[in-house]
Amino acid sequence: MTTLTDPDDLIWMRRALALARTVMYTTTPNPRVGCVIVRDGRVLGEGATQPPGGPHAEICALRDAAARGESVQGATLYVTLEPCSHYGRTPPCADAVAAAGPARVVVAMGDPNPQVRGQGLARLRAAGIAVTSNVCLDEALEINAGFVARMSRGIPWAWVKMAASLDGRSALHNGVSQWITGEAARADGHAWRARSCVVLTGMGTVLKDNPRLNVRAVETPRAPRKAVVDGDFAIPEDARLFDGAEVIIFTARTDAGKAARLAARNARVVALPGQQAGRVDLPAMMRWLGEHEFNEVHVEAGAGLGGALMSAGCIDELLVYLAPVLLGDAAAMLRLPLIEHLDHARRLEFTDTARIGPDLRLRARDSTRWQALREAAMCR
Amino acid sequence: MTTLTDPDDLIWMRRALALARTVMYTTTPNPRVGCVIVRDGRVLGEGATQPPGGPHAEICALRDAAARGESVQGATLYVTLEPCSHYGRTPPCADAVAAAGPARVVVAMGDPNPQVRGQGLARLRAAGIAVTSNVCLDEALEINAGFVARMSRGIPWAWVKMAASLDGRSALHNGVSQWITGEAARADGHAWRARSCVVLTGMGTVLKDNPRLNVRAVETPRAPRKAVVDGDFAIPEDARLFDGAEVIIFTARTDAGKAARLAARNARVVALPGQQAGRVDLPAMMRWLGEHEFNEVHVEAGAGLGGALMSAGCIDELLVYLAPVLLGDAAAMLRLPLIEHLDHARRLEFTDTARIGPDLRLRARDSTRWQALREAAMCR
Repeated sequence: MTTLTDPDDLIWMRRALALARTVMYTTTPNPRVGCVIVRDGRVLGEGATQPPGGPHAEICALRDAAARGESVQGATLYVTLEPCSHYGRTPPCADAVAAAGPARVVVAMGDPNPQVRGQGLARLRAAGIAVTSNVCLDEALEINAGFVARMSRGIPWAWVKMAASLDGRSALHNGVSQWITGEAARADGHAWRARSCVVLTGMGTVLKDNPRLNVRAVETPRAPRKAVVDGDFAIPEDARLFDGAEVIIFTARTDAGKAARLAARNARVVALPGQQAGRVDLPAMMRWLGEHEFNEVHVEAGAGLGGALMSAGCIDELLVYLAPVLLGDAAAMLRLPLIEHLDHARRLEFTDTARIGPDLRLRARDSTRWQALREAAMCR
Repeated sequence: MTTLTDPDDLIWMRRALALARTVMYTTTPNPRVGCVIVRDGRVLGEGATQPPGGPHAEICALRDAAARGESVQGATLYVTLEPCSHYGRTPPCADAVAAAGPARVVVAMGDPNPQVRGQGLARLRAAGIAVTSNVCLDEALEINAGFVARMSRGIPWAWVKMAASLDGRSALHNGVSQWITGEAARADGHAWRARSCVVLTGMGTVLKDNPRLNVRAVETPRAPRKAVVDGDFAIPEDARLFDGAEVIIFTARTDAGKAARLAARNARVVALPGQQAGRVDLPAMMRWLGEHEFNEVHVEAGAGLGGALMSAGCIDELLVYLAPVLLGDAAAMLRLPLIEHLDHARRLEFTDTARIGPDLRLRARDSTRWQALREAAMCR
């Protein structure tokens, strides 16, 4: 695992990763993939995966090379994910790559899809192509953590977005919370909404803020789905989030009449009653989302649902915007059960920290789960 | 103010700043100053201010050059603070510099001491030496914020050190707080104690943790003073912080007998009763500290005293160590009065963020006050 990577491979793979990042909002449920084809330090063609049904990154790059009149024979192809080996909505990319005849293929990570898992690379090797793998594995995994999570454990990668004061308060004692953080932090939060497959909130937030829950501060041709955890099925039928886009309502109670009326507003009601009356089975909800091809879940909720999801083990990562302000005795960020020993506290790992306008964005994730994704994404 | 700095000046001034940082723990109440003398890209001599009574940085650098057999004639002298022009414990450095005959002197900031304030530079100019000023002003101010604060406003620069979970909790509901952050964060906290002039705590902390309040995790030849805010003068006479080093007890109540017994343990009792019975006048305490040549105050206290100092306007900066852990419903970081509007919240400015072991260190300061220090430190 400690083999040194060729500096040229690093440079080109980073270009492929940058291409993958240009399609963060559009490829789901497929992974975001970038591809660059290079010979003698010159780009012959490049591309990124198109929306579902459209060509994958490798095909885009091969077509780009063809359009430029370039032969790919003997070149090196850099791709951020192992080329697929199965017929999905499109034919296998590994066959198309092999047919184009590059001398070498460099991949950042394996495809954890059980239908691929090494078979893409095996096909390339069988065609006499040299393969180098695991180049920039961690950067590639950052881009597709949700896809890897769904493929390897059947459950999406879920984060909670929170905004708080430096002393960890998410609202004043009187409930006022708009706006603790600045405009730049809100726009950054919308970029995380835009990349997700579903924006999930709770009834407390619906009743208090009546949010639209859509993506506004960034441009995106695809909108994530919206979802509400509503154990009592008490959602007001005129809530602002019913704006024509599909809304999923996870509930513990059935009411066929209300469900029918909401269906007319493009709401889909999913009953997943938990052990406690009136409470949704949150782990079952995450499994449901995985089964329905949701890769990434963006939670933007109050301390109640945020704390419940955290306690139920449904959260993989925290996305915390901290404002340089002190609020003192006010609302907590997450409602969690009392613990008696610090050893019992949920321990995460800080990843990147960024200054966003006057605020800070902190990210912290479950390192054990991240390591499991890494294992699933690594080529053997 | 937007003149471009010569790149060579930047390089040498940064070396002088690095020298100043080597004496962070030892020069108080004097400023930490570094000096490098250069000719044709070669160091002729360099030095940093010695403990009080010892030579200042410029004298150390001149002596270093002499010891190397180097003449300073026609050279450039870089110093992080304007050379002094008055007789303090030592004779004026400006005269010694002028006598050595460098062609040019570059300073990072002016000396805000009313006895100097531009006169040092004026003496140099009068001796025919070219002077360039305000080179790396902000970096220089970071090193001596406390000295500038005391000289310009009569009050030390004060920060509160806090350790908290990612959700802003400083202890569990049962009071357990050792240790939320890791060993590296505690050592970093001790480096901040070591640079300060006084480590200040409250009676809550004395009773709960019985701290020694000394510097342990870093090496320092000088220990900061210790101080306790103890309105009721209730401190146990066998508290562990009475270990022979001087302790200042700020109180609102007098008890000559107890004061005499504590004096035998090297405690000095200072009565500064506030408006509220049994409460110390905190702003008066900060003025007292300024009058007694304390530059930097390191507060390490509970949410009560921390919040009271913050509310009284006595805190300039927060030093927050955040652990990547969630504690949920537990003790708040600061006890502050309830506010009704976010506009009424105390707004600070984030400065640097650092990863310290598994934890993060966030710094946030009052930007208006920082600008005032900057004004006081700028050469005209």
